[in-house]
Amino acid sequence: MEFDLAAGVAVLERTPHALRALLAGLPPTWTEANEGPETWSPYDIMGHLIHGERTDWVGRARIILAQGTDRRFTPFDRFAQFRESQGKSLADLLDEFARLRAENLETLNGWGLTDAQLALEGEHPAFGPVTLRQLLATWVAHDLGHVAQTARVMAKQYRDAVGPWRAYLPVMDR
Amino acid sequence: MEFDLAAGVAVLERTPHALRALLAGLPPTWTEANEGPETWSPYDIMGHLIHGERTDWVGRARIILAQGTDRRFTPFDRFAQFRESQGKSLADLLDEFARLRAENLETLNGWGLTDAQLALEGEHPAFGPVTLRQLLATWVAHDLGHVAQTARVMAKQYRDAVGPWRAYLPVMDR
Repeated sequence: MEFDLAAGVAVLERTPHALRALLAGLPPTWTEANEGPETWSPYDIMGHLIHGERTDWVGRARIILAQGTDRRFTPFDRFAQFRESQGKSLADLLDEFARLRAENLETLNGWGLTDAQLALEGEHPAFGPVTLRQLLATWVAHDLGHVAQTARVMAKQYRDAVGPWRAYLPVMDR
Repeated sequence: MEFDLAAGVAVLERTPHALRALLAGLPPTWTEANEGPETWSPYDIMGHLIHGERTDWVGRARIILAQGTDRRFTPFDRFAQFRESQGKSLADLLDEFARLRAENLETLNGWGLTDAQLALEGEHPAFGPVTLRQLLATWVAHDLGHVAQTARVMAKQYRDAVGPWRAYLPVMDR
């Protein structure tokens, strides 16, 4: 499936609502559990998504659209949330993510991007040249990957509790 | 993490809302796409969840609670949705799932289950003896597994569109 701006935005709009519907009001036994050392809980994932809204997607899109001489992106800090989420509740994070996402989509929609603009390139610090279209497709896929991760991390908390049914639940061993 | 009835119900209550927030109003390019032959789309998954509400979880719980001489469960039809969803829109399925889930949780909550009841056993057609506690934990984990699957199936539609970022998106190859 090719990237389509309207269809991509439709997913980006829904992610904060989907995560709120899944997580808001749950006890910390669900929201602060992870898959083991060096893995993330739903709470950690929310902080990571917020850091992406603040520093990654729209900032990189601006670099591409400006087409300046230096189009290299700042590397993304995958661990910023362990610092930035301190003292915040999960409810705070759900609100913050929804607010930032709405602002970013207003910016994106305001650009009225053309196909020619979607084909413009920036420079990824690891991969080299990437297009705006690929960046926006990645924003969408990154959301969906973390929604999948959130549900998977929660499911795994019942790996033992399900007893023999584990054999029928592939999510337990992904 | 051990199964806890209140914490498990908290997830079961949220699943219809999470799937509605993720899927309602999206174009069929998202909701009818799958991962290849013999795999399921979000639309197929909704039909499967509905069939579970109709025939699986509460029916099996009743068999266990009755403690009759034959406590063997009817095997679950994993392909019923291809017949039963015919002619229904995704919006119909989201509504039907929400309604059936609410009814089933009313039934479950009405039982006021004790620890002794949660330890009662039924007979799974493949595994043999299973407890009510394991059945209810599986209901929860099954929901979460299908939420994860729904988001994963959608993410994979952009496997090519993300270009080199695929290397940073493990969801694309799960």
